[in-house]
Amino acid sequence: MREVKLFIVGLGNVGGGLVKLMKSLEKEIERKYSTKLRVVGAVDIEGSAFSKEGLDLDEILKTKNKGSIKNYPKFGSAKNALEQIEENWKNFDVLVEVSTTNLETAQPALDHIRNSLEKGKHVVTSNKGPIALHYDSLIKLAKKNGVILGFEACVAGVIPVIRILRGYLALDKVQGINAIVNGTCNFILGKMSEGISFEKALKEAQEKGYAEADPALDVTGMDSAAKLVILNNIVSSRQISLKDVKINGIKNLGGDVRNTKLIASLRNGDAKVQPEKVQEGSFFASVNGVLNAIEIETEIAGPLKFSGRGAGGRETAYAVLADILKIAAENRI
Amino acid sequence: MREVKLFIVGLGNVGGGLVKLMKSLEKEIERKYSTKLRVVGAVDIEGSAFSKEGLDLDEILKTKNKGSIKNYPKFGSAKNALEQIEENWKNFDVLVEVSTTNLETAQPALDHIRNSLEKGKHVVTSNKGPIALHYDSLIKLAKKNGVILGFEACVAGVIPVIRILRGYLALDKVQGINAIVNGTCNFILGKMSEGISFEKALKEAQEKGYAEADPALDVTGMDSAAKLVILNNIVSSRQISLKDVKINGIKNLGGDVRNTKLIASLRNGDAKVQPEKVQEGSFFASVNGVLNAIEIETEIAGPLKFSGRGAGGRETAYAVLADILKIAAENRI
Repeated sequence: MREVKLFIVGLGNVGGGLVKLMKSLEKEIERKYSTKLRVVGAVDIEGSAFSKEGLDLDEILKTKNKGSIKNYPKFGSAKNALEQIEENWKNFDVLVEVSTTNLETAQPALDHIRNSLEKGKHVVTSNKGPIALHYDSLIKLAKKNGVILGFEACVAGVIPVIRILRGYLALDKVQGINAIVNGTCNFILGKMSEGISFEKALKEAQEKGYAEADPALDVTGMDSAAKLVILNNIVSSRQISLKDVKINGIKNLGGDVRNTKLIASLRNGDAKVQPEKVQEGSFFASVNGVLNAIEIETEIAGPLKFSGRGAGGRETAYAVLADILKIAAENRI
Repeated sequence: MREVKLFIVGLGNVGGGLVKLMKSLEKEIERKYSTKLRVVGAVDIEGSAFSKEGLDLDEILKTKNKGSIKNYPKFGSAKNALEQIEENWKNFDVLVEVSTTNLETAQPALDHIRNSLEKGKHVVTSNKGPIALHYDSLIKLAKKNGVILGFEACVAGVIPVIRILRGYLALDKVQGINAIVNGTCNFILGKMSEGISFEKALKEAQEKGYAEADPALDVTGMDSAAKLVILNNIVSSRQISLKDVKINGIKNLGGDVRNTKLIASLRNGDAKVQPEKVQEGSFFASVNGVLNAIEIETEIAGPLKFSGRGAGGRETAYAVLADILKIAAENRI
């Protein structure tokens, strides 16, 4: 039985969801992957807990539920993620970076990821900041250190588009991408096409837990743009950054919005995010509510289309877990 | 640079397409996978060629173009695939079984695959016969011998549904599948809904090269059923065979066939293939021509939907190539 020691940074929807999933799937993971996942460390905004023997999953959830993980019995402390990485890097195999996305500086997640990669640790993340802002340097750093950087959870929720692009389509030539990658906007546009106002629809999306911590990231199109940058930087040798994306959000949209979707697209070197009318009866027209969808046009495989849930703590945690187990299955640990 | 030695059985659309793809992508494969693919053996219905130093890709295509590979200069012979496996098993790493599907006995591909797995060789195949008829025993045989059995090309053409089910979704629980997995039938139904007769539409599908060697496999629903058996046997502990599938083809379909698709479905232990009306504006309604599509309903990830080309020698060859390189990338060779 292989043992994989995880250091989890972030215990919000995704981190908490991951701990719950690991608990409910423990037997399955052992049976299907001959692997035992052990959480040796966990961090939130106030502090952390670390034990090289492993923390108890129930105790993590219980402690977090009452406040901060820093109160974890015996092993809790006020140390932050970087301090724990410095002190305990010999005691974990995979950094699981699932803290909140920061699209301005990518910090502090960027430092967590860089430090871990430099120390020869695999990294799995759902944090779009470092991947959207520093894709090229992080991929090179991972390669140089012979480790894997997994970020399936950064784009399009449960749709496994990252591994399809990096793995299955690696030899094909991607000619264009059209994508609906922000479930909140798709939900709001659907409501608006039923005659509900933008403000009411946004409020409903927030109440249902769909929106980002800062919903401006959704409705301005910034979240979609970050995902588009990631998609571009996987498939193109011409790396781009957020400022290369023409962005129009859905905030000031008026008039008839039936069959309007917020489309992120790459074609002929142009990257843009804008509301577009899609054809009635088309694939995109069938993508409703918080669903995400991606159309990839390639030279050999031709058009490939995918849709699935774009948000949700449990769904995102599943994508994170799948990345962790892919590393194990490829005999990297 | 890793070297992977391939023994290719079958030089039809898929085998020939694979040789061409390997040639055009040679540099890319070396660059992205640090891997050199070398075809050491190739087989067609009349004979074979084998050289442990490797055959020349252009010469394979040229020789085959003029008749049989048995006429390959110096290394050609009348030996069949089994004889070559017995004689040369120490000289190849991966059996590439891309001969014509036989849904009655799965032979001779079944013997090729079994023999190779028993000798500790990886196997990649587009041949539905062995996978549909002997899934469980072949998977066990591969596992026992510590090798990989890849069969992405068996179901839904270029849509990477096999690796999604075996890899990404391995820990999730698949609750139901609906699929359009026969491009010929989808093409014919589309033509029929425009008022063209079944016979004329079938003839057009044959002229365009979409139909199976024996088009009865398409229109009776048998080809879809074989793919459904494979999908079931990946996701369910309850293994089924072709006789467990309720099959209705499209041959005797009359009346208004607008929005009618040949749907292969798994739900609550029921496996069936039958023409069904799909809802206007739905995902399946947008799947036209020879496209394939799959809807997977799972417990954690929720609904996932995929569409892409279901047929074509080059496309199928790409799926085969991707399986070969996945084995290389996972450090199995």
